[in-house]
Amino acid sequence: MKSSESSLSSDLIDSENHDSDIDSAIFQLEMVHIELDKLNEKENDEILTIEQKYKKLRQHYFNKRTEIIESIPDFWSTVFTSHPGICHILYEDEEDCLRHLQKLEVETADNIKSGYSIKLYFNENPYFKNDVLVKEFFYKQGQLSSISTKIEWKKPHPSTSSSKEGTSKSARKRSHSSQQTFFGWFANNEDASSDIIAEIIKDDIWVNSLHYYLVPDPDMEGNNDKED
Amino acid sequence: MKSSESSLSSDLIDSENHDSDIDSAIFQLEMVHIELDKLNEKENDEILTIEQKYKKLRQHYFNKRTEIIESIPDFWSTVFTSHPGICHILYEDEEDCLRHLQKLEVETADNIKSGYSIKLYFNENPYFKNDVLVKEFFYKQGQLSSISTKIEWKKPHPSTSSSKEGTSKSARKRSHSSQQTFFGWFANNEDASSDIIAEIIKDDIWVNSLHYYLVPDPDMEGNNDKED
Ligand SMILES: [Ca+2]
Ligand SMILES: [Ca+2]
Ligand SMILES: [Mg+2]
Ligand SMILES: [Mg+2]
Repeated sequence: MKSSESSLSSDLIDSENHDSDIDSAIFQLEMVHIELDKLNEKENDEILTIEQKYKKLRQHYFNKRTEIIESIPDFWSTVFTSHPGICHILYEDEEDCLRHLQKLEVETADNIKSGYSIKLYFNENPYFKNDVLVKEFFYKQGQLSSISTKIEWKKPHPSTSSSKEGTSKSARKRSHSSQQTFFGWFANNEDASSDIIAEIIKDDIWVNSLHYYLVPDPDMEGNNDKED
Repeated sequence: MKSSESSLSSDLIDSENHDSDIDSAIFQLEMVHIELDKLNEKENDEILTIEQKYKKLRQHYFNKRTEIIESIPDFWSTVFTSHPGICHILYEDEEDCLRHLQKLEVETADNIKSGYSIKLYFNENPYFKNDVLVKEFFYKQGQLSSISTKIEWKKPHPSTSSSKEGTSKSARKRSHSSQQTFFGWFANNEDASSDIIAEIIKDDIWVNSLHYYLVPDPDMEGNNDKED
């Protein structure tokens, strides 16, 4: 780039020519940046392609895992009662209800920025009529939002009474800090962007279910925080 | 996985057989997890390969950019005095000194977790004898550390006097908050993991130098925070 003209410029050429040298250099820099931007875009595309390929390959093993888990009695109820971030929200008979949870699936969109869903498949049970409960997370105007299946209780269930729609913000906050329940969490779609339980299920339980199945139940270890 | 045996098990088979069914299922789950781990590792390897390929492709344009920039008088001094995170540490004649900065390069290791270096190439100048000043960042026992070229001043320079080796911790802290200087920053390797100036150069100036060259100098805009 250092032409003989440009090396003479600072002293000999008038400021108009000098400016046009600089303008031309700036134009060339802009062209370089366009090429760099293109490379970045191509790199992102190639990485996305790889991530999608491995997502498909993993799916085969996730399906196999789901099949194996269905042959293990009480697998998911054991996982949920063993998880330190979940066990404390299991209300009264929810632990028994979760013994009817036959299958759990977490589905992420190809682009995780498009959201994910948590699907809970239940056997016939004395608590509700639904076969499957789905909580779906999606972006709406840049904000993470959620919707969940309406649970059709066979008998009135206390666990959702404190987080029904229409409760005041302060009541909801109270329920979040100390009175949260599992199905209360499931039914509550007021604050999807800070849904810690959903994040635990997606990022930890879905990945590490076997670990939590195998760790000893905290209640069996003499940890008597909960009194029924 | 749901064999006829396993669907009969809960009622008919004794608990020892039941346990061995579960043990076998757990073993199969462990095998599935080994396959999932292998897939994750292969995915990471493929992504790293792509990142390295594009790093090489980008290098061609970075070299071209460096060449063009060398034809623009005062490019880097303009960039540094225009950057809101750098301009306030330019001490007295440092701005003039930086007019002799002909070339700036940021080199990252193939794996960014191995560190990076900032290289400042100077023309012959009245301030110091060095042609090139290098500040290198590397991981040492998991901790980001740095070393930098010893500057051979032609005359004693006030800018490094407040951050020389051997100053007390409190003196160094004072210098960081209000009396930091550009060459004081360069010479200071006491706190590499919180070296904000180095991060600005690596993540912003290196990427967006053209932008900062083109934005108007804050001093030219009637912004008279600094009084010389
Ligand atoms: Ca010129
Ligand atoms: Ca069995
Ligand atoms: Mg599964
Ligand atoms: Mg450059």
